[in-house]
Amino acid sequence: MRDTKEARVPMVVIKRLPKYFRYLGELVERKVERVSSQTLADMMGISASQLRQDLNHFGEFGQQGYGYRVEDLYREIGRIIGLEQEYSLVIVGAGNLGQALANYPNFGKRGFVLRGVFDINPKLIGLGLRNCDIMDIDKLEAFIRTNNVDIGIVAVPKEAAQGVADTMVQAGIKAIWNFAPVDIKVPPEVILENEHLADRLMVISFRIQELGFEEEGD
Amino acid sequence: MRDTKEARVPMVVIKRLPKYFRYLGELVERKVERVSSQTLADMMGISASQLRQDLNHFGEFGQQGYGYRVEDLYREIGRIIGLEQEYSLVIVGAGNLGQALANYPNFGKRGFVLRGVFDINPKLIGLGLRNCDIMDIDKLEAFIRTNNVDIGIVAVPKEAAQGVADTMVQAGIKAIWNFAPVDIKVPPEVILENEHLADRLMVISFRIQELGFEEEGD
Repeated sequence: MRDTKEARVPMVVIKRLPKYFRYLGELVERKVERVSSQTLADMMGISASQLRQDLNHFGEFGQQGYGYRVEDLYREIGRIIGLEQEYSLVIVGAGNLGQALANYPNFGKRGFVLRGVFDINPKLIGLGLRNCDIMDIDKLEAFIRTNNVDIGIVAVPKEAAQGVADTMVQAGIKAIWNFAPVDIKVPPEVILENEHLADRLMVISFRIQELGFEEEGD
Repeated sequence: MRDTKEARVPMVVIKRLPKYFRYLGELVERKVERVSSQTLADMMGISASQLRQDLNHFGEFGQQGYGYRVEDLYREIGRIIGLEQEYSLVIVGAGNLGQALANYPNFGKRGFVLRGVFDINPKLIGLGLRNCDIMDIDKLEAFIRTNNVDIGIVAVPKEAAQGVADTMVQAGIKAIWNFAPVDIKVPPEVILENEHLADRLMVISFRIQELGFEEEGD
């Protein structure tokens, strides 16, 4: 619906970028200098032509018959993803999930800096978590405004999720990552990712069942 | 690679099934009887032709000019996903993430029954979590075998993840859902879903950056 100068990159392609980034990072660590589109596609579990199509969205990479320079492509995809910048995060909900996310080792490494954790429970407020004190949720709106927070993580029970999201939106947050098992609504200018953990189990369920069919079929 | 009687359903389609199921569930709750492919596609954020293609993988649904019967389609997709069966789960790692997953409200509702939680930490062993006692990880292999556990969740630090997965595989688990921020390896007959939480943040990062470009462009 939004008017952009360039054709929008399809969401399926965007969702593959972190995976490209991870596999290329592995190759960088193993000091591999060049990789063919076929090899990289095999690692990704996609076809080589799909891979070339994906990367064409972002300009010209690699050379015919030579493949891709691993480090250049790694750095370039990092730049496309936006990893050269730092983003500030807050987590609302200091229960098990909020604590697990606050301590997730790979966030800080990628430039996502936790600035604050908020909860409604007076027993938790004031306790330390990672490098933050847990603050009263009443202070959320002012904190986001003052600190120009980019991303808000919603890790509260589903009944409270929409209210927390509304406060974040009001305070001018750019993006919300929702872990409550409910679809929350935000205005179109706010980026929203709903993390439906049960969806993953359903994919697993489908695949277990499919496996059953195959065994019967053989 | 595997030999199947039917063409394999593409993974992107499988990954959309839980979302179809959620939106149709919402329509069922709102007592909507019929839905056009256009309306359902709009809810899903895909095109109507994509939706028809998706559903064609599973047989004939709906009628030209009439749309889909919401409840029939909801029940049918649930059946396709495999939600008529019960699946048993174990969680290895009773830290914050393991506890958060044990208490995640939507798993049980969908037929995923938690059978056991395991940890290596003697301070946690014997404590109750959800309806289970936390057990010593030494008992994991025998427990999976005896109870015919379907799905193993790995919620341990990344250094321990592969070892836990190996034990699960040895014991005959069908599927592994890995939350440790590392790609673990399993034999091809075991279903594996790696949950890379940092990947989601990278998608958000990309979208924030893209938004910045648009603003500049306007």
